[in-house]
Amino acid sequence: MEPDHTRLHQQLQFIVEIDKLKHVLRQTLLIDKSRRENDAEHSWHLAMMAMLLSEYAETEVNLVRVLKMVLIHDLVEIDAGDTFCYDEQAIQTQADREKAAADRIFGLLPADQTSQLRSLWEEFEAKHSADARFATALDRLQPILHNYHTQGGTWKKAGVTIAKVRQRIAPIALGSPRLGEFAEALIQDALRQGFLANEG
Amino acid sequence: MEPDHTRLHQQLQFIVEIDKLKHVLRQTLLIDKSRRENDAEHSWHLAMMAMLLSEYAETEVNLVRVLKMVLIHDLVEIDAGDTFCYDEQAIQTQADREKAAADRIFGLLPADQTSQLRSLWEEFEAKHSADARFATALDRLQPILHNYHTQGGTWKKAGVTIAKVRQRIAPIALGSPRLGEFAEALIQDALRQGFLANEG
Repeated sequence: MEPDHTRLHQQLQFIVEIDKLKHVLRQTLLIDKSRRENDAEHSWHLAMMAMLLSEYAETEVNLVRVLKMVLIHDLVEIDAGDTFCYDEQAIQTQADREKAAADRIFGLLPADQTSQLRSLWEEFEAKHSADARFATALDRLQPILHNYHTQGGTWKKAGVTIAKVRQRIAPIALGSPRLGEFAEALIQDALRQGFLANEG
Repeated sequence: MEPDHTRLHQQLQFIVEIDKLKHVLRQTLLIDKSRRENDAEHSWHLAMMAMLLSEYAETEVNLVRVLKMVLIHDLVEIDAGDTFCYDEQAIQTQADREKAAADRIFGLLPADQTSQLRSLWEEFEAKHSADARFATALDRLQPILHNYHTQGGTWKKAGVTIAKVRQRIAPIALGSPRLGEFAEALIQDALRQGFLANEG
């Protein structure tokens, strides 16, 4: 585009490259059940949740850092693909595939931004900081909302039990006790309504 | 969901409602030309641009405010639909349709958040503040990138001339002189390559 302006050129090449996130499909259905959700839409939805629900974070969070984390958290899936959280085989190779993807994708940016995004992504993955714990809580809560509002969605398709979902949503309470309580109430209601199985 | 917790209930109802933004199609094609882009993906893409390009803002911006603006700027289109920027008839009714949509959609939230989102959206629409001018620059730049990388995309389909595009991208330079220069260079190159017509 503009070979003489390397920095802006690299940034714009990255911005064009990440258009591919709109093609990475998740298991989750949209709430009207018309199709599967993609990673770009999902990331937008998490950013909206961060903006509206930060008052429930367990420890006060830095909103701009949480927003950045949820916006970038799935970029590695452009290369590594979406790994279904209940697919135990795929999960074994997930970390290596995602690290290679992070090297390539974040590496398209100027060095300072490569390192900023890489370290935010690693912080998100590690789930230790208050910001990462809250971002993870949102990432676990959003598909629960979708599965509930699609009368079981992915849970039914994959024959997932309440015990498995409970394991999956455990991090919600670590980032936000209030949202953790809500998620537990929601899956209990899903069980009562037959959206979710008690045993496999 | 939890009738005894009105505030969280309202917030979650809103979060479920805005899933509909994933169904609002824009005129813009994805860069691989496989389909049209939707508003949720577009909003995510603008947020990524805000995060990476804020160094080019004409005046220093408040990143978290810019992020919020771009994340919410198209929510009114859930009710009002996407208005094609080169459709002069639709543009005449756009403001009224979008105001009614803002009343309903932002009104789903608790009062403090209704007023926060409403005022951010109005600020974005007014294009006066530095944050709004920069958010607008990104909103005008992103489709230009898509049209360029799809060898003319929407421009060709609608028979748009360089004069019309130049009018459409004028706000880019107001939010970011550097990105304004880049956009002008890009459309001149698009003209040379035949992606864009000189006259209608």
